[in-house]
Amino acid sequence: MDLGSYFQQRRALVDKALDDILPKADNDPLSFNAAMRYSIFAGGKRVRPILAMEAAELVGGKASDVILLAVALECIHTYSLIHDDLPAMDDDDQRRGKPTLHKVFGEAVAILAGDALLTLAFDVMSSPEAIRVYRPERLLKALNLLSSAAGWQGLIRGQFLDISMEGKTADETTVTQIVAGKTGALLKASLSCGALLAGGSPKEVRLLSSLGDNLGMVFQIKDDLLDIEGNSKELGKAVRKDQNKGKVTFPALLGVDDAKDRMRHHLKCALDTLEPLGERALTLAAICRYVGNRIN
Amino acid sequence: MDLGSYFQQRRALVDKALDDILPKADNDPLSFNAAMRYSIFAGGKRVRPILAMEAAELVGGKASDVILLAVALECIHTYSLIHDDLPAMDDDDQRRGKPTLHKVFGEAVAILAGDALLTLAFDVMSSPEAIRVYRPERLLKALNLLSSAAGWQGLIRGQFLDISMEGKTADETTVTQIVAGKTGALLKASLSCGALLAGGSPKEVRLLSSLGDNLGMVFQIKDDLLDIEGNSKELGKAVRKDQNKGKVTFPALLGVDDAKDRMRHHLKCALDTLEPLGERALTLAAICRYVGNRIN
Repeated sequence: MDLGSYFQQRRALVDKALDDILPKADNDPLSFNAAMRYSIFAGGKRVRPILAMEAAELVGGKASDVILLAVALECIHTYSLIHDDLPAMDDDDQRRGKPTLHKVFGEAVAILAGDALLTLAFDVMSSPEAIRVYRPERLLKALNLLSSAAGWQGLIRGQFLDISMEGKTADETTVTQIVAGKTGALLKASLSCGALLAGGSPKEVRLLSSLGDNLGMVFQIKDDLLDIEGNSKELGKAVRKDQNKGKVTFPALLGVDDAKDRMRHHLKCALDTLEPLGERALTLAAICRYVGNRIN
Repeated sequence: MDLGSYFQQRRALVDKALDDILPKADNDPLSFNAAMRYSIFAGGKRVRPILAMEAAELVGGKASDVILLAVALECIHTYSLIHDDLPAMDDDDQRRGKPTLHKVFGEAVAILAGDALLTLAFDVMSSPEAIRVYRPERLLKALNLLSSAAGWQGLIRGQFLDISMEGKTADETTVTQIVAGKTGALLKASLSCGALLAGGSPKEVRLLSSLGDNLGMVFQIKDDLLDIEGNSKELGKAVRKDQNKGKVTFPALLGVDDAKDRMRHHLKCALDTLEPLGERALTLAAICRYVGNRIN
């Protein structure tokens, strides 16, 4: 299959839904609504929404069944990047080839726009539209999976460890916790909530959840390798930042070659998980391979 | 009635629930869990939880019916204070007589702990416990009222206007928007969600929602008056900050005397709303009067 045009088509769906749901930009280019839109429309790959749609199709649903979840996922992902880029956190000036939100709108607005996107995710997932489309019990369960993944046990725990371990020596358990938190948790929720809301069985939800664990490792180790081996033009952000900051990563812990082996191991586990599903999992398998082979 | 011991009793209920639900503090006094707990247990008055419990009782429910909502409200309120106090926002060193979170744990942790409390609110409201206790449709509706109140149309809009109008001349419409957003929205949601989750009729929910509008004005104008006329020891924070920062408030717009009149007007409107409910609204009326007469 042509993964490029598949991604393009899916991204168009997601972008349309984001455009519909985010507050309209008014004439003021520095308004608060403009700030909320700035980072959302800064060229994200929409990996999480695409995973959610793929999970929905895999369990027999349609991509459009989980479009509200897709919007919520992208809002949570984008908020986490906005706060992560702040001067008090990773202090990054560039993201996806554009100045970060706080460089354009100032720190106060960046904090608030992040807060607003996080809150919007839960607003969308409890909206009258969501209540109309999904069975209430499934919707509440998905909301809970999503908030746990985004919360202190998940994404935020990962960010906290990532920042507080800077310059320190970490063991493998800690590095795994960081990756599982800052990257794995939301990828996992994308897959499990996508399956759940599209009517997947508990067994299917569990399988996709376990896929998310491995895919999170693949995604983050690849990100860390790109920081070392990639070039900043393709990545749209500065490279070799992690080493300068003393970030705790698998390449830093194991060396580049062993980190690549580790990534391949988790990619294989991910593909093995999908194997018994046969043809209906081919696209998801192709996405997993893309995540491990991408150049940005 | 003895409002003092009533508040004390209610606060104990809320504090117990917060203690149960917030992640346990471990032995490290500077751990992330400790940061989440620091601001929550820094001596808040628990006004929003108490309003939710009172709304529940007013519609024939029990205070304990809305304890999960109470926790969610206090998490959202506390997160908004933590982010509001950050150097990039209002840059406050003291809150409730204690150093603000970022002064103790650093800015990065304060941003993340705020994020974590906001997310925890939605986690609690979609938890298995919540699903067991509330009817799914009511729970989803309450979740949506809460996320809208906390989001870009509500609390965050108020904070954004509050910060971006600093030092500027504002008309009454803008000041009203600021107050309705940064204070009114969550007070209103406390009352309406409390009534909703305890089984209140649409008419009762509407009535309490409208009470929230007026109570928000009373609460904020009183806060602004205390900043001018109060003393920092009783308030537990610096006074006369608003004027120094050129904050847009009703006392700044109208002068102290007219702002007091305005506050009394909204207090009267609040009490008038409750009047037809007779005896069952007496405590809520006493709380409204307290909000307008408090010294901290």
